[in-house]
Amino acid sequence: MATGTSGGPAPLAVGGLRTATVAGGLRYSGRDDLLLVELAPGSRASGVFTHNAFCAAPVLLARRHLESCSGRPRYLLINAGNANAGTGEAGLVDAWACCDAVAEAMGVDAAQVLPFSTGVIGESLPMERMRRAITASCEQLGEADWTAAARAIMTTDTRPKCQSIRVSLGDRTVTLTGLCKGAGMIRPDMATMLAWVFTDAALAAEDLQSLLESAVGQSFNRITVDGDTSTNDCCMLAATGASGVTLAPADEDWRAFSEALHNLMRELAISVIRDAEGASKFVTIDVRQGADAQECLDVAYTIAHSPLVKTALTASDANWGRILAAVGRSGLKDLDVSRVSIHLGDVCIVEGGTRAEAYTEEQGQAVMEQEDITITVDLARGAARERVWTSDLSEEYVRINAEYRS
Amino acid sequence: MATGTSGGPAPLAVGGLRTATVAGGLRYSGRDDLLLVELAPGSRASGVFTHNAFCAAPVLLARRHLESCSGRPRYLLINAGNANAGTGEAGLVDAWACCDAVAEAMGVDAAQVLPFSTGVIGESLPMERMRRAITASCEQLGEADWTAAARAIMTTDTRPKCQSIRVSLGDRTVTLTGLCKGAGMIRPDMATMLAWVFTDAALAAEDLQSLLESAVGQSFNRITVDGDTSTNDCCMLAATGASGVTLAPADEDWRAFSEALHNLMRELAISVIRDAEGASKFVTIDVRQGADAQECLDVAYTIAHSPLVKTALTASDANWGRILAAVGRSGLKDLDVSRVSIHLGDVCIVEGGTRAEAYTEEQGQAVMEQEDITITVDLARGAARERVWTSDLSEEYVRINAEYRS
Repeated sequence: MATGTSGGPAPLAVGGLRTATVAGGLRYSGRDDLLLVELAPGSRASGVFTHNAFCAAPVLLARRHLESCSGRPRYLLINAGNANAGTGEAGLVDAWACCDAVAEAMGVDAAQVLPFSTGVIGESLPMERMRRAITASCEQLGEADWTAAARAIMTTDTRPKCQSIRVSLGDRTVTLTGLCKGAGMIRPDMATMLAWVFTDAALAAEDLQSLLESAVGQSFNRITVDGDTSTNDCCMLAATGASGVTLAPADEDWRAFSEALHNLMRELAISVIRDAEGASKFVTIDVRQGADAQECLDVAYTIAHSPLVKTALTASDANWGRILAAVGRSGLKDLDVSRVSIHLGDVCIVEGGTRAEAYTEEQGQAVMEQEDITITVDLARGAARERVWTSDLSEEYVRINAEYRS
Repeated sequence: MATGTSGGPAPLAVGGLRTATVAGGLRYSGRDDLLLVELAPGSRASGVFTHNAFCAAPVLLARRHLESCSGRPRYLLINAGNANAGTGEAGLVDAWACCDAVAEAMGVDAAQVLPFSTGVIGESLPMERMRRAITASCEQLGEADWTAAARAIMTTDTRPKCQSIRVSLGDRTVTLTGLCKGAGMIRPDMATMLAWVFTDAALAAEDLQSLLESAVGQSFNRITVDGDTSTNDCCMLAATGASGVTLAPADEDWRAFSEALHNLMRELAISVIRDAEGASKFVTIDVRQGADAQECLDVAYTIAHSPLVKTALTASDANWGRILAAVGRSGLKDLDVSRVSIHLGDVCIVEGGTRAEAYTEEQGQAVMEQEDITITVDLARGAARERVWTSDLSEEYVRINAEYRS
């Protein structure tokens, strides 16, 4: 299951990039499962990585290589189906060997190759097939095909996730195209499952990093499927400079570019939630008038992670008592429950801490039957506001995750 | 579904108590859904209550009455099917009226009546039927029937939960009998769904309270089904003194009594998890060698609440990568993952932060196919140890919670 519609406008080309996708038989048959992206010389990239203490070998290595090459990688290598996580030293040696294979074929330094993996945790990479697939991908590099690229990195995803924005800056134009994957084990922590955004603008290294972190904070760090922060989360922003447009925070065009990036990354993050495992609902949780951002997030994530709220959403049941119970247990100090109000869509369900007088079950039901649902909680004790996006908990989610390995 | 076996030895009589159960048609038909317990004059009771900010009207009132009557309540009134939570001032007025009805019929002060409710949140109590049921229960009070009592308070429970222990203290004997209910919305926070333990020993008020808090800490505060702390959690310990045995911490018999209480409450807490909604597995999570108790609990609850670990348990899939990922995201500072080991039952699955060398899938599979599973995590950085008990996440859990109201 998934919410919203698949497809959308075709992704836009970004100068300075080539791609190759290969059916390496790494885990899947009859589909591509390896992606190689080439960045033109001079491109810059910044990245954020998972905070899971057990972060995967490719994450360790990608972070290290990004530093060693001073933020100027030439190749991104991504395989789907095997996360190369929990594989200890041997996993690191395998990830190294993958980078070496690309470096040798393309005549670059191994530190200019960043590896990424997604899939099952705890199994070794099938290195013989990896080597063959890497060789083939290096030979096949050509005009970037972002739809094929987004398809090659899917695991339990039911649709490829790819978005583009073209930004007009006076008489100049820059393009942003991003892709990502992820449908389960989603609760990014300063990073995300796997996402890459490319632009043909040129940016300084520090601006690239700060822009990425700010956009991630309002996009991938605001989504959750199941609260399970992955071992392999990574998000990268790469700038090839191929458009000839150089941007810096002092420029008058900076704001337009930054907004475009924020929008693109929010759309990508939302596309992950729309394709969440077993999802039949797309849920926005909007917490307002909190004392600070953290308490808004505490309330939002407590609701978003509550199995009882999530199963009520599955059933289109306006069980507002479960939302209220989740707010009550979210750990807010000195919460005056008699000031709390809760809306389902435009319908006020809780007012003054209890069922709103004018509320009828029919009103709540009408909202719950929609595919896109917004739950708004007003804490009436400050000016902070945060939004997170999540999905419901269906029997299909359980089925997918009970069967994914067998 | 449920794990373990139903039944067990018949509960033991505790002097100084009478009960009545009534089919009040409050929510269910063809079964009792109201329980009245009478404590002999002179009995003492202590209680712990939910920390959910939205605590229910009966919780507010039971806490207040327990204080007003100086820990000497005469009646406990429990209804099943309606939680009287999220009902605001009107809910409080209803709870008051219930206490008044018992007080009037039995000739006691309203403050000596403690109300408890469990069931759907956000609906008003059907007061006309409540009054009729209360009148009937007051007329029917007789010899305590603990099995009938435990049945009358069930909601999504599939079996009554009742346990007894007789403690021989030299030539003296005291008896403890406890009952509880709960199968979902279970992650007690300094309290539990609904549980009452009765003894015929006599104890001072402060000893009763400290003993209860210590036993709850190691029993009901160590279980979780879904992380959803209820609005109605309460746990009470009542001592009638009918055995003629008075106990105080300085007595040589105190330790035997305290141990018996701890054991009884742990068994009751475990019976909740064995009857968890949709449960096909009973899971003990044992975290050892942590720096302190809190970090052991952080790791244990992160595993216990992970939908991915819980669905792997449902599938009897030895997906140790999900356990490892949960340990990694549990927020421990400076965790040296290369020292972490994880066992499934007696089988070492992770050693030195990665898959144990001697481990085979067959070994893991053999453990996972059992109904009772222990996951042991050794953090190798201290002397603290904590255990929590939980259940799996099955399609039936989703079905129950998607359908429970319709």
